[in-house]
Amino acid sequence: MTTNVPAIAAPAPHAPLERTTVPLRDVGEHDVLIEIKYAGICHSDIHQVRNGWGEGIFPMVPGHEIAGVVTRVGAGVTRHRVGDRVGVGCFVGSCGTCAQCRGGLEQFCAQGITATYNDRHADGEPTYGGYSTHIVVEEKHALRIPEGIALDEAAPLLCAGITLYSPLAHWKAGPGTKVAIVGLGGLGHVGVKIARELGAEVTVLSQSERKREDAFRLGADHYHATGDPETFTKLAGSFDLVISTVSAPLDLDAYLGLVRVDGVMVNVGAPEEPVSFDLSSLVGGRKTLAGSMIGGLAETQEMLDFCAERGIGAEIELITADQVNEAYERILASDVRYRFVIDAATI
Amino acid sequence: MTTNVPAIAAPAPHAPLERTTVPLRDVGEHDVLIEIKYAGICHSDIHQVRNGWGEGIFPMVPGHEIAGVVTRVGAGVTRHRVGDRVGVGCFVGSCGTCAQCRGGLEQFCAQGITATYNDRHADGEPTYGGYSTHIVVEEKHALRIPEGIALDEAAPLLCAGITLYSPLAHWKAGPGTKVAIVGLGGLGHVGVKIARELGAEVTVLSQSERKREDAFRLGADHYHATGDPETFTKLAGSFDLVISTVSAPLDLDAYLGLVRVDGVMVNVGAPEEPVSFDLSSLVGGRKTLAGSMIGGLAETQEMLDFCAERGIGAEIELITADQVNEAYERILASDVRYRFVIDAATI
Repeated sequence: MTTNVPAIAAPAPHAPLERTTVPLRDVGEHDVLIEIKYAGICHSDIHQVRNGWGEGIFPMVPGHEIAGVVTRVGAGVTRHRVGDRVGVGCFVGSCGTCAQCRGGLEQFCAQGITATYNDRHADGEPTYGGYSTHIVVEEKHALRIPEGIALDEAAPLLCAGITLYSPLAHWKAGPGTKVAIVGLGGLGHVGVKIARELGAEVTVLSQSERKREDAFRLGADHYHATGDPETFTKLAGSFDLVISTVSAPLDLDAYLGLVRVDGVMVNVGAPEEPVSFDLSSLVGGRKTLAGSMIGGLAETQEMLDFCAERGIGAEIELITADQVNEAYERILASDVRYRFVIDAATI
Repeated sequence: MTTNVPAIAAPAPHAPLERTTVPLRDVGEHDVLIEIKYAGICHSDIHQVRNGWGEGIFPMVPGHEIAGVVTRVGAGVTRHRVGDRVGVGCFVGSCGTCAQCRGGLEQFCAQGITATYNDRHADGEPTYGGYSTHIVVEEKHALRIPEGIALDEAAPLLCAGITLYSPLAHWKAGPGTKVAIVGLGGLGHVGVKIARELGAEVTVLSQSERKREDAFRLGADHYHATGDPETFTKLAGSFDLVISTVSAPLDLDAYLGLVRVDGVMVNVGAPEEPVSFDLSSLVGGRKTLAGSMIGGLAETQEMLDFCAERGIGAEIELITADQVNEAYERILASDVRYRFVIDAATI
């Protein structure tokens, strides 16, 4: 007998989201049942609903920034107990045995991860994401959310938070390093908070002057508008680490000019079109252009622990289930500071 | 009174090289006078003679792969003595005080290096390179060539050798790592030898099957033709480090597909045109695309010591001064295995 649970789903590509119910998976030996409290809205949710990345699976219940409470555990579960505050991020399956999984880089699992939604479980059943009241996941794919952080502000950390924490940690942002965050949106604003708490000197590079005040409030040390060409002259060779959170194609040669000798520019988003740049922008300073994608399970736990300890949460606008379609439009119009989070009690 | 010395120079852009004489600088307190024995021909010599990189300074005496013997030293010289075997590479000036110079990355000197030819000394006089019988350089820009290595085979190491040694060392090629060298020419063939001696498992990626036998003779463990599209399928995700020595634009997405998760692709040459690729080729595996340019002074010395100890020299075809123009044509036709070296006694 299948249990169905309420959810917000897109019935077809490009269709508005609407209330529905979706089947809940049985709680297996190593699974936990989570009562979802909050689900963040990530830009990629919109992308997938609108079928931007190939064939989507519909009806689609988006949401991979999930915070909730464990309400049932399988017989073999050791990590979590009923009542635990937990989060689920971008994937609910990874093989656990390949070199990447063993190395804590499950996001690059050789077998391919099972995405939290718009994917299929091993048995062929679709995965349904966080815009719902419940989800069942294997215990290792649920991370502890420490008490120090509110569940609604924690939800976006499961994607936006780890997406920024991972490159900041990997490329060693910290005391004495100069970090630039390009783009102050859902990803960038968490990046500023984390980079600051890691001890780096943080510069926000945003298109206009519009977000200057916010940037300083979030903890930035400096702010420069990239619409002003002088920014690229003034800051030439300044940064150890430039993290671009922007998915629009950038003038990479200009941004690589901001990186110091031996420095790194990391992209955490990728435009759909190819980018074009001059390889001499790398050669002339042993610079590196890198990519980073969310983070592994242990690193995501480390990020949650770090954020709780340092009081870092996302800046959110809490919405009801009825406001999701409107929220999508506002995100597309860049009218959000900085993350919409759905109150799952309203679903 | 200015001393003039015989040299081979291009009198004007695109003109054939011809015998001439050029002024020799006075030997200052910290300078050494070097009797040049051999000078390698680097592809960039042809490039600059033919005015590919902006305005050249003519007459131009190319050559930045210089091996010779010290015949006079300034009063303040401490590193070298008359009779010492020394080499000079791509630059004869660096400020010595900027962060890069202090960090052993003189090639990225904040003041700009003084190139061995086609540049100007601080006093405005042109620099003249290695296709000559003598050169005067500040002692720190002359490196010791240990006894274990013949001077003619050592000459190309001053550019080709360090260009490959530096990225191989920086990105830690060694036992347990898989390295691919793209292109088996003047740069690539030295890269194969060095990578092998560093203990890496070495694969040569070359356009056709033509150089297969040579690759194995030079020490490669594997050889694949990149003209065969199956190469990119078979070797997907195989390499820790891919070093491209090719200056023609490559299909970067295809080559990044050969790099493992967390792996690196390094370019030591840059095509003149911009390259175009998909940033998701980096994001989907935390990969990095990097550039590298020759190496610092201490690292160049380290490379020479390593090559002497391991018996690594360039594979050369020794030519006379009269054969330089013909050699240029043969290089452009890829008809050289693997480096032309001018016998300076014939100049």
